[in-house]
Amino acid sequence: MTSRRQLLQMMGAGIVAGASSRALAQHEGHDMSRMSATPASSTVPVPAGLEPPRAQKRHAQGYLPVRTLNGWTLPYEIKNGVKEFHLVAEEIEHEFAPGSRAKCWGYNGTTPGPTIEVVEGDRVRIYVTNRLGEPTSVHWHGIDVPVGYDGVAGLNQPAIGPGETYVYEFTLKQHGTHMYHPHADEMTQMAFGMMGLFIIHPREPEAVAVDRDYAFLLHNWSMHPGTYRPDPSVMVDFDLWTFNSKVFPATEPLVMRTGERLRVRIGNLSMWNHPIHLHSNPYWVTGSDGGRWPQSQWRRETTEIVGVGQMRDIEFVATEPGDWAFHCHMAHHTMGPMGHGVPNPVGVDQSGVEAEIRRMLPGYGAMGRYGMSEHSGHVAMGLPGPENTLPMMAGEGPHGPIEMGGMFTIVKVRDDQKPGDYTDPGWYRSPKDQMARRISVDPGFGQPHRRHPYGSPTDTPAKVKQPQMDHSRHGG
Amino acid sequence: MTSRRQLLQMMGAGIVAGASSRALAQHEGHDMSRMSATPASSTVPVPAGLEPPRAQKRHAQGYLPVRTLNGWTLPYEIKNGVKEFHLVAEEIEHEFAPGSRAKCWGYNGTTPGPTIEVVEGDRVRIYVTNRLGEPTSVHWHGIDVPVGYDGVAGLNQPAIGPGETYVYEFTLKQHGTHMYHPHADEMTQMAFGMMGLFIIHPREPEAVAVDRDYAFLLHNWSMHPGTYRPDPSVMVDFDLWTFNSKVFPATEPLVMRTGERLRVRIGNLSMWNHPIHLHSNPYWVTGSDGGRWPQSQWRRETTEIVGVGQMRDIEFVATEPGDWAFHCHMAHHTMGPMGHGVPNPVGVDQSGVEAEIRRMLPGYGAMGRYGMSEHSGHVAMGLPGPENTLPMMAGEGPHGPIEMGGMFTIVKVRDDQKPGDYTDPGWYRSPKDQMARRISVDPGFGQPHRRHPYGSPTDTPAKVKQPQMDHSRHGG
Amino acid sequence: MTSRRQLLQMMGAGIVAGASSRALAQHEGHDMSRMSATPASSTVPVPAGLEPPRAQKRHAQGYLPVRTLNGWTLPYEIKNGVKEFHLVAEEIEHEFAPGSRAKCWGYNGTTPGPTIEVVEGDRVRIYVTNRLGEPTSVHWHGIDVPVGYDGVAGLNQPAIGPGETYVYEFTLKQHGTHMYHPHADEMTQMAFGMMGLFIIHPREPEAVAVDRDYAFLLHNWSMHPGTYRPDPSVMVDFDLWTFNSKVFPATEPLVMRTGERLRVRIGNLSMWNHPIHLHSNPYWVTGSDGGRWPQSQWRRETTEIVGVGQMRDIEFVATEPGDWAFHCHMAHHTMGPMGHGVPNPVGVDQSGVEAEIRRMLPGYGAMGRYGMSEHSGHVAMGLPGPENTLPMMAGEGPHGPIEMGGMFTIVKVRDDQKPGDYTDPGWYRSPKDQMARRISVDPGFGQPHRRHPYGSPTDTPAKVKQPQMDHSRHGG
Repeated sequence: MTSRRQLLQMMGAGIVAGASSRALAQHEGHDMSRMSATPASSTVPVPAGLEPPRAQKRHAQGYLPVRTLNGWTLPYEIKNGVKEFHLVAEEIEHEFAPGSRAKCWGYNGTTPGPTIEVVEGDRVRIYVTNRLGEPTSVHWHGIDVPVGYDGVAGLNQPAIGPGETYVYEFTLKQHGTHMYHPHADEMTQMAFGMMGLFIIHPREPEAVAVDRDYAFLLHNWSMHPGTYRPDPSVMVDFDLWTFNSKVFPATEPLVMRTGERLRVRIGNLSMWNHPIHLHSNPYWVTGSDGGRWPQSQWRRETTEIVGVGQMRDIEFVATEPGDWAFHCHMAHHTMGPMGHGVPNPVGVDQSGVEAEIRRMLPGYGAMGRYGMSEHSGHVAMGLPGPENTLPMMAGEGPHGPIEMGGMFTIVKVRDDQKPGDYTDPGWYRSPKDQMARRISVDPGFGQPHRRHPYGSPTDTPAKVKQPQMDHSRHGG
Repeated sequence: MTSRRQLLQMMGAGIVAGASSRALAQHEGHDMSRMSATPASSTVPVPAGLEPPRAQKRHAQGYLPVRTLNGWTLPYEIKNGVKEFHLVAEEIEHEFAPGSRAKCWGYNGTTPGPTIEVVEGDRVRIYVTNRLGEPTSVHWHGIDVPVGYDGVAGLNQPAIGPGETYVYEFTLKQHGTHMYHPHADEMTQMAFGMMGLFIIHPREPEAVAVDRDYAFLLHNWSMHPGTYRPDPSVMVDFDLWTFNSKVFPATEPLVMRTGERLRVRIGNLSMWNHPIHLHSNPYWVTGSDGGRWPQSQWRRETTEIVGVGQMRDIEFVATEPGDWAFHCHMAHHTMGPMGHGVPNPVGVDQSGVEAEIRRMLPGYGAMGRYGMSEHSGHVAMGLPGPENTLPMMAGEGPHGPIEMGGMFTIVKVRDDQKPGDYTDPGWYRSPKDQMARRISVDPGFGQPHRRHPYGSPTDTPAKVKQPQMDHSRHGG
Repeated sequence: MTSRRQLLQMMGAGIVAGASSRALAQHEGHDMSRMSATPASSTVPVPAGLEPPRAQKRHAQGYLPVRTLNGWTLPYEIKNGVKEFHLVAEEIEHEFAPGSRAKCWGYNGTTPGPTIEVVEGDRVRIYVTNRLGEPTSVHWHGIDVPVGYDGVAGLNQPAIGPGETYVYEFTLKQHGTHMYHPHADEMTQMAFGMMGLFIIHPREPEAVAVDRDYAFLLHNWSMHPGTYRPDPSVMVDFDLWTFNSKVFPATEPLVMRTGERLRVRIGNLSMWNHPIHLHSNPYWVTGSDGGRWPQSQWRRETTEIVGVGQMRDIEFVATEPGDWAFHCHMAHHTMGPMGHGVPNPVGVDQSGVEAEIRRMLPGYGAMGRYGMSEHSGHVAMGLPGPENTLPMMAGEGPHGPIEMGGMFTIVKVRDDQKPGDYTDPGWYRSPKDQMARRISVDPGFGQPHRRHPYGSPTDTPAKVKQPQMDHSRHGG
């Protein structure tokens, strides 16, 4: 066990009194692992006992813990003044969203692995156990470490063989937003989901403090229809685009109170440079895996490209309540896997053919004469898709289908959200006079489209579940 | 009708006298809609009566109107101090360049839709009528609006059904370069061309004034050979790359006078982050959809990545007259659709085979033994290509074929271009002593290449149109 | 010949005494061409007599010459105060790494062509001879030249026909990092490797001086299996990703002494925006093809996107010795061509099938049940791959296989590297107590994996070369 003296030695002479006392408080029995931020969603396999707190508290060392979207923070023990972490590289069962599961690789049971969260000046000892069938290693991306701990297998260390445990140990000389990931058979191991966040909080309070601090990683996956493993040989044409290995609507929302300052830390380990767009609220880009930038360099954007192997911190103060879309702006990256590579039926009248086919295949319905929006109606109707594959467009909002998927989530700003309360407040309802509204319908328009958009009156209700698509009831 | 008092109330107390007087001038009968910038090209289906002025004038509210490349600006009416606009989402016939037409979707008859151009502090009311066969909505990208007007169908509002008209109304609290586009069946509707620019001019004159202000949107399209509709399911391998839905040589040039300051506002709704390069003249990147940046952040580039869902403002002062290429720097994005995915004949001597085939197929010509440049010769010769498809390389310049296509246009700087005059000055001719020139020919070189590059002496002139390819006549 | 007076006239009145004396020294017979930086690697076809100096010296004009990674600097002659260069566009034999050769196009025998290196204020005359079978031209990317020398064939000049020599002449009004490349049949000519660096040193010493100055260009190539020419029609799915037309392990390392300041100038003429990551050492991004930025704009990163058609200068001071990985962070871009588009065998027990097949095909071995890492074992075993194709993962480091390829090299920082000494110091060996190390092996783990990862005890040693994969011997 650590003595108080050893701990003080470790913390060093240059550390302010506040930091030392925080460290001491921590040493004297506070269970910091219970302060880790873990998500609420039932689809997240957070280890038992590490469920997310609804109300966020500061860590004993003084920092505001990061909320890992749909994820969790790795507990540690302090031994002789060193924070000890354990990572286990292993095969896992992962769910991208209900209806889409796969054998992936991750750390400690999840992809991404748990977030490592420490303070500038901390010394860490990280045990890495390899429970995969092939060698691995861990690279601490963006972190200034002695080269022997930099993690490139073959170059900086031997690879960690199956069944072996290696140890890494270093002192954190910086703060900022970083990652960890393998640097051995990197293409395969990252394609299968091996990655995690590594957040280093500053020793001194930040000049511009934030009220909430979210983090997630971008990734892409190739899941061929009917398969249960990602295909690591695909370079470009992926079909699942994820925020922390989840697709909308399984992505957790970012919750905040009006007037609060939010930071979102975004990292990218996919094969595309993703432009991340926040609706309506311009944000500042304030730092990267190169650390926090001086304030004179903070740049105003509503869309920032987060390059592969980059981290980007963005910050903004919420001025208006509401449910604000937050997503990659490449249109195909906010879609589910269906619909890519299929024939294009827009403009083709399939009605005659459809009736013909229906005589042979009861329940058959032609899709897409007027666009792909019919698709979400079909999903609502419960028409079956391919096995283990998500629909192209998903998510039912307060005003009907949201028709999204993939890299999409929602920033929920509320006037009455309590500080530190991370409970999902449900859907926002705009006042009726501050909302786009229907003012007229052309009675003569769309006569030839009467089967459209959501089923035909001649369909037998007994056979297909009626979609709830009457827009008039979604008044606000 | 609006009273002057109502208008003043709307404008608010905090508005400077100048702005108010501009607003009053506007209210009192100036027909601002006739000041909108529309293009000269005969290939642009600008609505009748909205032809572009040759000479640009300031708007009654004091701002210099934007020139939408190959596009036009949406007229409005003022009702009770509110600027009222009408957008109609509908299917259109679109021409990418002569020889390539498609059924697209757009607004008010064009893709991109008309540019909305307003002033900070204005209140706008925008009616959106859906004349498509499926629901749509409009998101005002980068603009700070109440969440009920943010336009994500299902999340912020019900979708606008076919035949329905919805109304959006908000006050502009910012200035800068923005876009509008659907947020319902987004993948399909944007793939078909639904997008438009939304420019908000500052209430106060800008510290660094510009003399000309151009704007356009980047996009990509998948048009399979012989088809007449874009394929929305394609994610990566597009074949048409456009500036405001046009490909070179149908793209309008940017015209300016030497010594003037030019701003170009570029937005991207494609699936690629495009690096836009201006020849020779370094420019400053001065802002984005996050607004104009402080001058200390203006960054010097000759190539700037415009990310998907991003806007980028670039500015420069022209110091040298000439015709300067301005294009995406990804080589395939300045090409037409042909030539991608074809076998690679470079280095293969097809002459024996060619003669053999010609006996069976008169007019057949093998291509590409020495490179793809032969292709532009073939185009000049009038050899037929696939139906409704553009050649890979196009454009005839003052010195021969320019061999470009797609995202390519020209900045034309002239010493004698009159301020405010947007007339295309034609080709620039360099003085003979300030131009790359031939100083020698190796008489022994290229004997085996004598059929190359532009036709063989054994070709019958009666059968193929002789290309005008004698470089010696292009002396300057 | 030039008189001293003519030279002084050319240099202009505004030039400091130091610069003039440097110019004079140069004029009076110093053979500057011998100071050009050329690489050590035996795989580089550097012209005879232009071998790289081991010890770098300043040029007579005072600047520190750039080290072109795996490349060389073009000699010149001074005639009438003008620096005269000769570029010859021609077909070449190129080796990406031992085992992968192709017919490419380049300049003066290499791809990339030689680096042109000059000083702000210099006047240059560049002769370009076309020894290709089709027309070409040269664009001086990012350089402020009269439009007649801007190099867009058809637009700014006639194309340079086969066998023809053209001359370009201009004075350099700026300094910074630039490129040259064709602007005629650009898609094909760049896809075949035509490109080169054009470095302009400042006339005055830089405020922040660097100790070493490296430069290279990013590119991609499509080499279909069994072919010997790049396929210019491929837009997206390339299989060779190169630093100066080389793939790891044929890429030259960047060598430096601890405490020195390094600049790396990176340009991109590929079809992807590449995020370039340096391990552990955050760097500043200090300029682009738009020139050097003011110091207040230098941005801290560990990963910077270098867009297509962009240059990016990065700088850092090495604080820790070691071998630091430096690479594109897109996982597939640090791989060789194999493994893309192959079936995914991970998780499939092929052992029964394998034995069956082996009865018919002696030597057959199923791959990849536990991941792709087996692959590097197979490479080490000498299993044959497709003709003229590199393995997916390559490079043998001090601790075993590095399992990389493509856009990957190493920054070698040493405490005892002599200033100006570019000799490769070999592998770095970390002290044993500052290196990731094995602390335990689970004896029960991996029993079903006993054939893994590098061969099975039942394999006959006589048939396959035993891989040297005992990790225990790689202690540090």
